[in-house]
Amino acid sequence: MSAALDLLAELDDVGRDPRGGWSRPGFGDAVAAMQHWFTEHAEAIGLDVVRDRNGNLWAWWGEPARDAVVTGSHLDSVPGGGRLDGPLGVVSALVAVGRLRASGFRPRRPLAVVVFAEEEGSELGIACLGSRLATGAVDPAVVAGVPALAGAGADPDGVGRIGRFVELHVEQGRGLADLGAPIGLATRVLAHGRWRVRITGRGDHAGTTRMADRADPVVAAARVVLAIERAALAVDGARATVGRIEAIPGGTNVIASAVELTLDVRADTAHAVRGLVSRIEEAGALESARNGCGFAIERGSWSDEVVFDAALRDELDAVLGGVPALPTGAGHDAAVLAALVPAAMLFVRNPTGVSHAQEEDAADADIDAGVDALERVLRHLAA
Amino acid sequence: MSAALDLLAELDDVGRDPRGGWSRPGFGDAVAAMQHWFTEHAEAIGLDVVRDRNGNLWAWWGEPARDAVVTGSHLDSVPGGGRLDGPLGVVSALVAVGRLRASGFRPRRPLAVVVFAEEEGSELGIACLGSRLATGAVDPAVVAGVPALAGAGADPDGVGRIGRFVELHVEQGRGLADLGAPIGLATRVLAHGRWRVRITGRGDHAGTTRMADRADPVVAAARVVLAIERAALAVDGARATVGRIEAIPGGTNVIASAVELTLDVRADTAHAVRGLVSRIEEAGALESARNGCGFAIERGSWSDEVVFDAALRDELDAVLGGVPALPTGAGHDAAVLAALVPAAMLFVRNPTGVSHAQEEDAADADIDAGVDALERVLRHLAA
Repeated sequence: MSAALDLLAELDDVGRDPRGGWSRPGFGDAVAAMQHWFTEHAEAIGLDVVRDRNGNLWAWWGEPARDAVVTGSHLDSVPGGGRLDGPLGVVSALVAVGRLRASGFRPRRPLAVVVFAEEEGSELGIACLGSRLATGAVDPAVVAGVPALAGAGADPDGVGRIGRFVELHVEQGRGLADLGAPIGLATRVLAHGRWRVRITGRGDHAGTTRMADRADPVVAAARVVLAIERAALAVDGARATVGRIEAIPGGTNVIASAVELTLDVRADTAHAVRGLVSRIEEAGALESARNGCGFAIERGSWSDEVVFDAALRDELDAVLGGVPALPTGAGHDAAVLAALVPAAMLFVRNPTGVSHAQEEDAADADIDAGVDALERVLRHLAA
Repeated sequence: MSAALDLLAELDDVGRDPRGGWSRPGFGDAVAAMQHWFTEHAEAIGLDVVRDRNGNLWAWWGEPARDAVVTGSHLDSVPGGGRLDGPLGVVSALVAVGRLRASGFRPRRPLAVVVFAEEEGSELGIACLGSRLATGAVDPAVVAGVPALAGAGADPDGVGRIGRFVELHVEQGRGLADLGAPIGLATRVLAHGRWRVRITGRGDHAGTTRMADRADPVVAAARVVLAIERAALAVDGARATVGRIEAIPGGTNVIASAVELTLDVRADTAHAVRGLVSRIEEAGALESARNGCGFAIERGSWSDEVVFDAALRDELDAVLGGVPALPTGAGHDAAVLAALVPAAMLFVRNPTGVSHAQEEDAADADIDAGVDALERVLRHLAA
C-alpha cells in the first residue's frame, strides 16, 4: 500500500459508530486520539507541532513566519460520517510534505500543515469553528462554555501568517465521477445556513383523544417536512435538509406537545437561500396551522457564497496540466480562509458521490493521484 | 381543603418536568419517593403494606385473604404527564378507606388498596407491567434485566385474592364534561397495540446531494406520518399516534440513513385495529418507496378490547344512584384484571379532556365527589 493508504488504515478503528460509519465529534475522545496521532506523524517527518488558542494544530516546516504556504483539513466527522471527509486532506498533506522533505526540496516560503478544530460543527452547531475563531469570523463568546478554548480568538501567529492556502478533500458529489477525472479544483461554495424550527401543538393522551380533536405537532411537522422538500425542489440547485427531528416529550402513548427539527439550506447565492427560507417560513406556518399548531423558526449559523480566488485556481490548473473545475455545496475551512487570503481546494473523485455517510469512498489510485497533485502544488507554491 | 386535595398537594413537587407536567418513570426516583409516601400514609390509617414480587404495593385492612375487595391505581406517569392520571385513584382509595375505618365500618370481606407498578410502560414499553406480571399476562422473562423484579411472576397472594376490583381514575376525554356529570362508570376499553416503524434511506451530505438524487428517510417518514393520520381518520372511533420519532444518525448537515418512530393504534375491536395497521403497513411501504426508502414495522405490546363486567357495573350504578356509562381509549390495570375477576372503573370529570399532559385536570368538587362515590362503592362491596 502507499503511504497515504497506510496512514488512513491507522485511523480505521478510531471513532467507529456501531450504527454505521464513524462518529468523531470535535471535542471528543476520537478526535483527541487523532490529534495525538497527527502530532506523532508530523514530528516523525521533522515538523514542529503547536496548538493555537482555538484548538487548531499547526505543523511547521522550519520557523513560523508570514506569507506561509499552508495546507490541511480537519479530523472530526459528522455522526455516522465517512472515513475520508477531513482525514484525507490531513493524511495527503503529511505524505506530500514528507515526500518534499525527503526529496531535498528547500522551500523559499514557510510551509505548514494545519488541522482545523470542529469543522463539522457537531458540538456547538457552528461549522468550521476552529478556522472561524482564528480568522475572527465568529465571536469567541460562543465558546465561553468550552474550558479548552478559554483563550479563543483571532490568531495572528497561525492563520495570520498564511500567504496562500490549499485544502485537499474528497469530493462530496458525483461531479468528477461523471467527468471521469480523478482530481479537480473548486470554483465556489454555495451559500448556506442552519435554522432551528419548533412546531407547538397540544400534548394529550394517545388513546382517548379523538383524531379530530387533536393538535398533533408530529403530524404538523410531517406537513412542514414535505413543504420544505417542495420549496427546495422549486429552486434550481438548492438543497434543504431536515437532519434531526424530536417529538417532545416523546412517549409512545403521548400526543407530543412540540416537535423540534433542524433545517439546513444551501443555494447558489445568499439571496437565493434567503428567498427559499422565507417561502419555507410562510408554508411552514400555513401547514402547521392545518393541524392547529404554531410554527417558529430561528437562524443558527450562516455563510455567504464563497468564490475561490480565480488567479490561484488558474495557476494550480496549469501546474496540474488542466483539471475540471467544480462548485460544491459543502462548507470548508478553505472557504472561511478565502475571505482573507487566496485559497484553493483540490477534490478527489468519489465514485458514489455519497458523503457524511459510511458509503463515502475514493479508489486507492485516486487517493494516490490526490497526494501527487498536492505535492506538485506545494512544490510550486513554496518554491 | 379536603383530605384528598391535601394528599394530592403533597405530591405536587415530586417528579416535575422542567419542560412541563410531571415525568415519573415506573422505576425512577420520583415513583420510589411516592411509594414511600404511600406506605407512610397507608400505615398511618392502620393498613399493613407489603410489596409483591412484581413491584406492586398492597395495603391490607386486616389479614390478607381470598374474595377481597380491592381498589387502587398507579403512581407512575408518562413523560410530561398530568398530576391526576394514577395518583388520583391511589389518593381517593386512601381517603375512602381511611373514612370507612374512622366511621367504625366493619368489612365482611377483606379490603385492600393496591398501587400497581409501571402502568404507563415508559420504562420497558409494556403498559400495565405490574398487573400483567401479577396476573400472568406477560412472561416474567421480559423483566429479566430489572434486578428489583428478579422474582417476578403470577402472584396468588395479591392479585390471586381479589374478589372484585374497582379503579377510580380521572377521565381522559371530554365525555363527562359534555354530559355535565361529575362521575361515571366505564363500559369498555378500546383494543390497542404499539408498533415500531423503521424507514431506511441513504445517508448523505446535506450540502452536496441534489434534491433529486436523495433517498431521505425523514421525507419518507413525513409521508408515512400523514398516511397514518389519513388511515386512522377513515375508521370510526380509531386513534393512531406517532409519539416518538428519531432521525439516525441525527446531524444537522447530514441526510439521515434511517428514521425510527413509534406507532400507537386503538379502535373498538382487535379486528378493527389489525385492519387499520395492515392498511398503514401497505400505505407506509408505498409512501416510503416514493422517496426510494424501505419500510419495516414490528409489533410491540398488544391488548384486545376489554368489556367490563356488566353485572358489577349495574350494581355500582344502583349504589351511585345512576351515573353515565362511558367507553375509554386508555388501557388500565382494571382492564388487565377484568380478564380474571369482575372489575369496574369510576371516572372523574376532566373539564379539558386533556390527559398525558399538564393540562389534565379535575375540579376540587369533582375530586371530592369521586372520593365520596368510591367510599360508597367500597362500603357496599365489602359489606
